[in-house]
Amino acid sequence: MRVLVPLAEGVEELEAVTVIDVLRRGGIEVVSAALGSEREVGGSRGVTLLADTVWDAVNPATFDAITLPGGGQGTENLAADSRVIAAVKAFAAAGKYVTAICAAPTVLAKAGVLNGRRATCYPACAEALGEAYDQAPVIADGSFITSQGPGTAMLFALVLVQHFAGDETARKVADGLLTTF
Amino acid sequence: MRVLVPLAEGVEELEAVTVIDVLRRGGIEVVSAALGSEREVGGSRGVTLLADTVWDAVNPATFDAITLPGGGQGTENLAADSRVIAAVKAFAAAGKYVTAICAAPTVLAKAGVLNGRRATCYPACAEALGEAYDQAPVIADGSFITSQGPGTAMLFALVLVQHFAGDETARKVADGLLTTF
Repeated sequence: MRVLVPLAEGVEELEAVTVIDVLRRGGIEVVSAALGSEREVGGSRGVTLLADTVWDAVNPATFDAITLPGGGQGTENLAADSRVIAAVKAFAAAGKYVTAICAAPTVLAKAGVLNGRRATCYPACAEALGEAYDQAPVIADGSFITSQGPGTAMLFALVLVQHFAGDETARKVADGLLTTF
Repeated sequence: MRVLVPLAEGVEELEAVTVIDVLRRGGIEVVSAALGSEREVGGSRGVTLLADTVWDAVNPATFDAITLPGGGQGTENLAADSRVIAAVKAFAAAGKYVTAICAAPTVLAKAGVLNGRRATCYPACAEALGEAYDQAPVIADGSFITSQGPGTAMLFALVLVQHFAGDETARKVADGLLTTF
């Protein structure tokens, strides 16, 4: 199981780092990829992350899941990137996991992959999800897994571990984090 | 209110980023400082953070609080750094906030500032805190605020906001994060 995490300028760094950290605690391979030409990515609250690589150096087809962290500006930058939209469409068409948190589920709506699906997002962004929207900390509808925001990032990451590596692994990771699941 | 966050190699990146992000959401000035000669700091789960500056470029005396993120190796590196130990002693002597999470409260014990105090930490590290140890998600004892680990990092950060910027600000930040407080 290999997970691709695009990092755009303005990403909510807490969400990105929580997801990457928790997935790796679950033994899952994660590759973070900056959208620009440099690995440095500035977060929404001024934390600069150094991505593992840049988007143009990875082949999205070699991944089993894509996870979009949120952040207002970060999400705008994801949505404006035709490579990200194309990858979301390709992952959805292939039945691979398409996952997003906070404002980022709106990118799935823009890519047109939420028809007939249930999804959630940061409540202020609900309108963009149209009929797919439902309010819940995390919604897993088949291979589409979405979540609300920073306060649900750890739960979201644990649900991803549950789907990618199983219940027992997710519970062990939750124990190590000192959280419930 | 200015908060100094030392970042050592092996820091638990989820804890560091959650604390920095949430404090900044509360309008609090935070400066992260790498202990080495470069701003790059490798986290415990392979996320590389770019600190705001390096330790030798800051004057700890100009800060009102110090916050130590955890991580096993990160904490060992904090504890082995005489500059960090000296700063913890100086902050404690001046009645400034001395705060730490996960394994990092053991650095406060090593600095000898927990005598007569109550503190918490990652349960596996409890012995190092001696009689100061109590098991709770967050313990605020005067200007000493400590917490247990990744699963309590957001609550810890919100308690810091509460102390540094007041109840109302902490509640607004919690609302924005979609968490309770």
